[in-house]
Amino acid sequence: MSSASPEMPSMIATESAAKPSGAAGDLTAIVHAMGERARAAALALAAMPTDQKNRVLEAMADGLLADEQAILGANARDLEAAAARGLSAAMTDRLRLDPERLRAMADGLRHIATLPDPVGVELHRWRPPNGLDIAKVRVPIGVIGIIYESRPNVTADAAALCFKSGNATILRGGSEAIHSNRAIATSLAAGGAGAGLPPDAIQLIPFTDRESVKVMAQMDQWLDLIIPRGGRGLIETVVSLARMPVIKHYDGICHLYVDRQADLEMALRLTVDGKTQKPGVCNALETLLVHRDIAADFLPQAAAVLRDRGVELRGDEAARVLVPDLTAATEEDWSTEYLDLILAVRVVDSLEDAMAHINRHGSRHSDVIVTGDAEAAGRFFLQVDSAAVLWNASSRFNDGGEFGFGAEIGISTDKIHARGPMGLPELTSYKYLVRGAGQTKADNSSL
Amino acid sequence: MSSASPEMPSMIATESAAKPSGAAGDLTAIVHAMGERARAAALALAAMPTDQKNRVLEAMADGLLADEQAILGANARDLEAAAARGLSAAMTDRLRLDPERLRAMADGLRHIATLPDPVGVELHRWRPPNGLDIAKVRVPIGVIGIIYESRPNVTADAAALCFKSGNATILRGGSEAIHSNRAIATSLAAGGAGAGLPPDAIQLIPFTDRESVKVMAQMDQWLDLIIPRGGRGLIETVVSLARMPVIKHYDGICHLYVDRQADLEMALRLTVDGKTQKPGVCNALETLLVHRDIAADFLPQAAAVLRDRGVELRGDEAARVLVPDLTAATEEDWSTEYLDLILAVRVVDSLEDAMAHINRHGSRHSDVIVTGDAEAAGRFFLQVDSAAVLWNASSRFNDGGEFGFGAEIGISTDKIHARGPMGLPELTSYKYLVRGAGQTKADNSSL
Repeated sequence: MSSASPEMPSMIATESAAKPSGAAGDLTAIVHAMGERARAAALALAAMPTDQKNRVLEAMADGLLADEQAILGANARDLEAAAARGLSAAMTDRLRLDPERLRAMADGLRHIATLPDPVGVELHRWRPPNGLDIAKVRVPIGVIGIIYESRPNVTADAAALCFKSGNATILRGGSEAIHSNRAIATSLAAGGAGAGLPPDAIQLIPFTDRESVKVMAQMDQWLDLIIPRGGRGLIETVVSLARMPVIKHYDGICHLYVDRQADLEMALRLTVDGKTQKPGVCNALETLLVHRDIAADFLPQAAAVLRDRGVELRGDEAARVLVPDLTAATEEDWSTEYLDLILAVRVVDSLEDAMAHINRHGSRHSDVIVTGDAEAAGRFFLQVDSAAVLWNASSRFNDGGEFGFGAEIGISTDKIHARGPMGLPELTSYKYLVRGAGQTKADNSSL
Repeated sequence: MSSASPEMPSMIATESAAKPSGAAGDLTAIVHAMGERARAAALALAAMPTDQKNRVLEAMADGLLADEQAILGANARDLEAAAARGLSAAMTDRLRLDPERLRAMADGLRHIATLPDPVGVELHRWRPPNGLDIAKVRVPIGVIGIIYESRPNVTADAAALCFKSGNATILRGGSEAIHSNRAIATSLAAGGAGAGLPPDAIQLIPFTDRESVKVMAQMDQWLDLIIPRGGRGLIETVVSLARMPVIKHYDGICHLYVDRQADLEMALRLTVDGKTQKPGVCNALETLLVHRDIAADFLPQAAAVLRDRGVELRGDEAARVLVPDLTAATEEDWSTEYLDLILAVRVVDSLEDAMAHINRHGSRHSDVIVTGDAEAAGRFFLQVDSAAVLWNASSRFNDGGEFGFGAEIGISTDKIHARGPMGLPELTSYKYLVRGAGQTKADNSSL
């Protein structure tokens, strides 16, 4: 489950302790050289057998545990710096590693080793009239850049997912976690090397100043894809700079629509689950839409239960007639990802109005209809343009784990390449293998 | 088959006859308003049944033929302007329409009507342990921007492919073809309207100055994807400006490698076909690699046959020993897309050297091995990182038509989303339809 909690916008702007001593040209040259080496490593990874990749993942997990002292020591330096800079408690918690978190990181690597290898899978094979035998086969994407903020566990998680799917990675973490990230990356590389990990398959950019993000984002000859992991500010920065494709994990402004034919008890359970089970994540509910015909039966009771659970409600005028002491929602509320115990509430006249609201204000992430009317659900499925459209189920199920993907690198809000939860297959491309018997376009048999 | 012939770099920089009279803000507002209307049209298109889409395509074809006078008249104005500006004969030919070309355009629309509709196809359906019923279903991408140069037929072809796959399009053609493009777009919209085409489903940007490309490339709230159709200069410009994904159809620097175990007669036929059958296209051969062990048997004979067909050869030192009067190849030759009757020739020591050359100098497009050794072909398949890797077949077969796709919008050199020939399915995304029975993440049955 990717958390969409906003992180400090300063993450990528901070001056680095590790700024190169020479001119900006040095930094560019160093990062480009890393890209060139990653490209070579990617070609080797594309041909690595599954069992070897799994042995490397196990060896990296062992390495992390063996290097516990070094990693926690490096993390302590980051925590000291965070304290000195007055980082918030929430940010500091994201940064903190302890033996249990390190074990969870290692377990994550071992879990990825158990997942099916997507590389080499034949997606389709056919013989067109020209007699060629054409196979469409999954291959790695190549070199993936990961730009992230303060969570040091991303260093291991993202690198391992990219590695299992046959990709080389260039990691660029935030300055807060630089010592932790370096220690983890060093440990992964050393641990994996014994099992055959090419030295340049997983590389961490040693700089944390803004320029290194720009250099990465511009070097499309070496990077096939960038995945930013973090808040909107980080993603926006990468999008505005990048020459290569960026897969974005933007906000989840998720809706639940209670249709006139809804089971109201189910609607209440799904609303409470979507809003309160884990409010700080991208597939939590932010807006409740209620059909006018059942609003009087549903809203007062729902409001009472939600408030009991600490949820602040912000309603439109019709909602405030039914629940008089409701805060008035502003236009801004319809487009806000609260990530908190706040819920916007609107009464709508029809299914069409609900869908129009969602397509206008939503973020194409996870949207729910509660209804007993299969025809209404069918229209909602067809016309709501979101990664996951759910009928009588909590929005919280739009998640790689719940989908059975085993692991995910995030939940894409893009419609290109990968949409919704991104597991290992979404970290691959494909190529066509064409087997012929000397076929030519022109008849040149007389040669 | 997409032609990769270079077009005039001035295409997108030319001042427009139709420049808006007000400030740049007007242009931005107008283009954004087109985007917003396209978004609304896209939601309608996503729900349009296949038979209606096919009727619209037929109606658009009828409209084009009915509007022959207006379209050819508009084209005559473009041709006059081209003559006045001294446009080259090749450029002028690309621009020219006549009754036959117009009929071919209409036939293209009717052909697209016969192709299977990718939208709504269930790609996968499963039930994870949580009991949900999850279906992964093809949906349109949404709104696609097409930025192209002087060929007015792109207006109809690209719009029709995007439309059949349920997408709204915003077209932005070159200034040379502005009158032709306007007449075609007007005809398509009017023809389609009678069969239910939403008025904003196919829109042509009325401006041809550079600013309109920039505005399109930045409005990622309205455009889900941009596909530039034209030369490298155009694609580079779009890539450097775009905030949304760009699917690129860059050069084809395609190789044929004659292995030591090749059938030399077959190798010669495939070389001649790849180089001479249609030299100006992206899947034509540009470089011939020959294994040292068979170079003496193969190269002199191949050189004679190729020269007979008007091909200029440029060789490395080893090749020049075997064919003494060969022009010397420079480093630049290995990375040049000639699109002409020129072929670079290099003798390599091994399969590994051939693959290293291709992965270094190629453009990941179409690369061929000629060999009787299945193990060598297997390694070539695994390690050459190209959209199509062909064994004993001409590079010219990497083509949507030859693959049986029916029609293609181009041959992608990207590895994200679509790679190789892009047919209708490659113009779609997907979403997850989740059917539940009230499932929640937390147990809140006591509510």
